[in-house]
Amino acid sequence: MESGERVSEPFDTAHLQKLSVVEAADAIARGQITSQQLVRALIERTEARDGAVRAWAAFDADHALAQARACDEGATSGPMRGVPVAVKDVLNTFDYPTQMGSPIYDGWQSRNDAACVAMLRNAGAVVLGKTITCEFAGTHPNVTTNPLDASRTPGGSSSGSAAAVADFMAPIALGTQTGGSVLRPASFCGLVGFKPTFGGYNREGMRFAAECIDTIGLLSRTIEDAAYCDHVLRGAIPSTLAPLEKAPRVGLCRTYMWSLAQSETRDCVAKVVAQIEAAGAPVEEFELPPHFADLTKARAIINDVERARSLAWEWTAHRDKLSPGLVKTMASGIAISDRDYRDALRQVALARLEIDSILRRYDVVVVPAVNGEAPVGLHYAGDPSFQALWTLLHVPSITLPAHRGPNGMPVGIQFVAPVGEDSMLLRAALWMQHVAAIRMESDA
Amino acid sequence: MESGERVSEPFDTAHLQKLSVVEAADAIARGQITSQQLVRALIERTEARDGAVRAWAAFDADHALAQARACDEGATSGPMRGVPVAVKDVLNTFDYPTQMGSPIYDGWQSRNDAACVAMLRNAGAVVLGKTITCEFAGTHPNVTTNPLDASRTPGGSSSGSAAAVADFMAPIALGTQTGGSVLRPASFCGLVGFKPTFGGYNREGMRFAAECIDTIGLLSRTIEDAAYCDHVLRGAIPSTLAPLEKAPRVGLCRTYMWSLAQSETRDCVAKVVAQIEAAGAPVEEFELPPHFADLTKARAIINDVERARSLAWEWTAHRDKLSPGLVKTMASGIAISDRDYRDALRQVALARLEIDSILRRYDVVVVPAVNGEAPVGLHYAGDPSFQALWTLLHVPSITLPAHRGPNGMPVGIQFVAPVGEDSMLLRAALWMQHVAAIRMESDA
Repeated sequence: MESGERVSEPFDTAHLQKLSVVEAADAIARGQITSQQLVRALIERTEARDGAVRAWAAFDADHALAQARACDEGATSGPMRGVPVAVKDVLNTFDYPTQMGSPIYDGWQSRNDAACVAMLRNAGAVVLGKTITCEFAGTHPNVTTNPLDASRTPGGSSSGSAAAVADFMAPIALGTQTGGSVLRPASFCGLVGFKPTFGGYNREGMRFAAECIDTIGLLSRTIEDAAYCDHVLRGAIPSTLAPLEKAPRVGLCRTYMWSLAQSETRDCVAKVVAQIEAAGAPVEEFELPPHFADLTKARAIINDVERARSLAWEWTAHRDKLSPGLVKTMASGIAISDRDYRDALRQVALARLEIDSILRRYDVVVVPAVNGEAPVGLHYAGDPSFQALWTLLHVPSITLPAHRGPNGMPVGIQFVAPVGEDSMLLRAALWMQHVAAIRMESDA
Repeated sequence: MESGERVSEPFDTAHLQKLSVVEAADAIARGQITSQQLVRALIERTEARDGAVRAWAAFDADHALAQARACDEGATSGPMRGVPVAVKDVLNTFDYPTQMGSPIYDGWQSRNDAACVAMLRNAGAVVLGKTITCEFAGTHPNVTTNPLDASRTPGGSSSGSAAAVADFMAPIALGTQTGGSVLRPASFCGLVGFKPTFGGYNREGMRFAAECIDTIGLLSRTIEDAAYCDHVLRGAIPSTLAPLEKAPRVGLCRTYMWSLAQSETRDCVAKVVAQIEAAGAPVEEFELPPHFADLTKARAIINDVERARSLAWEWTAHRDKLSPGLVKTMASGIAISDRDYRDALRQVALARLEIDSILRRYDVVVVPAVNGEAPVGLHYAGDPSFQALWTLLHVPSITLPAHRGPNGMPVGIQFVAPVGEDSMLLRAALWMQHVAAIRMESDA
């Protein structure tokens, strides 16, 4: 730290690194800290930790500080003034390369910012850097480790976004979710992961995986931070989330995939339900219509066809640089007939109507977030099943840290709401945390 | 033409320039012509005409010929082998700049092809060049003139795509439609314009205008050509469209905008209906539910908000290079609350369900394509109202040249079908042309 810049006691380096978005925005706006102090603390953390965590695909301390300095000198304003953010490396940035976890794009840089990045910057945010993604936001893992246990995956495909936020290198990160790429890494790393209703945040400048389900989302350490940036990404002035006036109407849906749930997920769901009921909200369990089990296949068809089409150029020009797994997915997609693809789209469109009338019986529905703890090893970023169903259905979803597994790793719980009810979902999540006291054991 | 490359009589230069996609693919596959001969004929046409028409934003004769040579030498295969295509300048191409009708992107070149471009190339197509677009596929006109009357607009925003195909500089072109940017220029230039069901062709590598309605489409001189490329863009092997086994069930919907229809559009609809009925298909007129008139406002909200968000980077970094009209649209979008935007999305989602049950009473529905002939002047690319409603509703639509206005300019008729019924729509359009003899007067 340079002389003359001593921060007051409550804002020592460790504290700065742990500031939430809301706290940071407030402290900067009040002049209690500068953006440069905050960014410097995060750079320090990154320098200390990223050798082990490997969250960043591109990180330039000088450039981050230059942005912070501009904020401090009044070049920008807005609700994110001076607040650092991390950006998943499938979202374009004019000042950092966008490499998409693929050697095909080594060093490639876009001309512009993705819309979501630009909206954060226009609100005053400092882009710290780009976070590592699985290849084209798919399943082929990258080098990032789980900050809570380096022998385990952080989840994917928003691996670096989750790791950077969980390890206090950034307070919030943009991620993308096609299957479970925001909520699963959030759960594996003990974070809040929020996926808005499909289309909630503008996707211009996002590299598509499967465009009819790709959704931009947020990874943060608090619900309030997700809500704050959610407002900014909708072009709104952030306001404090209004607490629910009464207990929410709560549904519970274990889904047809319940047999995939490991004991820690079963325990997590049981514990969460018990806490919600203890807080005064009866929980009504329901089952999905049996034919919803067919959605797994429909999702695979849509995913494979759309990935194959969206990567048509890479398929021909650089097939040797695609991972074997992606080549297999694309070959599957190429082999699927357009009729089968359209049938799958129709089937999913009908399921979206059906789930809407089911979900609207509740304010919020509890569903499993993940199979269990983050698996050991970096070769597999985890099973997206429990997240992917809800992504496919276009509904907003959020995961909160709720439990610890047998190895002490976090296990999240997922809440979903009907399409468009993002604000109710966030408010219900706050109720879950503050009234039903849903959190990980060690925090209790 | 170089010595030793004399083409046989039926394939003289004028004939080559007029070949359809289907004819060209067949002639090349049979060895009757080479791709180089065809491309050379189109280059000749371009050199003779583009000074007046100004269809191309980027055109490189040597590069086009090099692609054709590679095709002729067997480097590529597939149903489009050697067939030239034009590409609207909001779709990325690895070998030509993508300038989007905006000085912000002067000379900018993407790393890759848009998915739709790559799929055509993977099927063997030769990309002739990039066609001029209105600024970011919006309403701010560019320099292209109508090939049928240089004092008139070709329509927009796929201005160059329409002009290139209408003037025989290319047999087919990719366009995009957010309001009426494929069908209106097609109608103004006497072409077939086809917009598939929303999402029909993969949008990776397309610059978004309003992403929840942006649709990639085709401009061609024949229905068969649109159907042929439609198959390719769906990853399918093109097959001949099966003729309808019996007359289609035909609806007629003048829409709540009928008062916008000029006399030539009224005459066109009357003539088309009479011909359909004369061909043995009773035409049942229906009215849209009255609240559909509110969709005009909902569309404006969605359009303005999504354009404002998608151009968030340009707004801050290069506002001085945006047209005043676009700045106004974006300012409108920024001022609209996210709640109003989401209400508009919900309203449109309900209307999509409602129109589906209405349209499914018919095989095909006749609707006006345009207000009338292409207006005089290049400052205004025409009124999108009659096309935009159906784009908003996500249904597939096609326009065919059907009539001539008081100035001898073409007037199209539009047909629409329910979501997903693209194939039925194309087959019905063929029936309209071949059985009901719908075409422009001079062709009759």
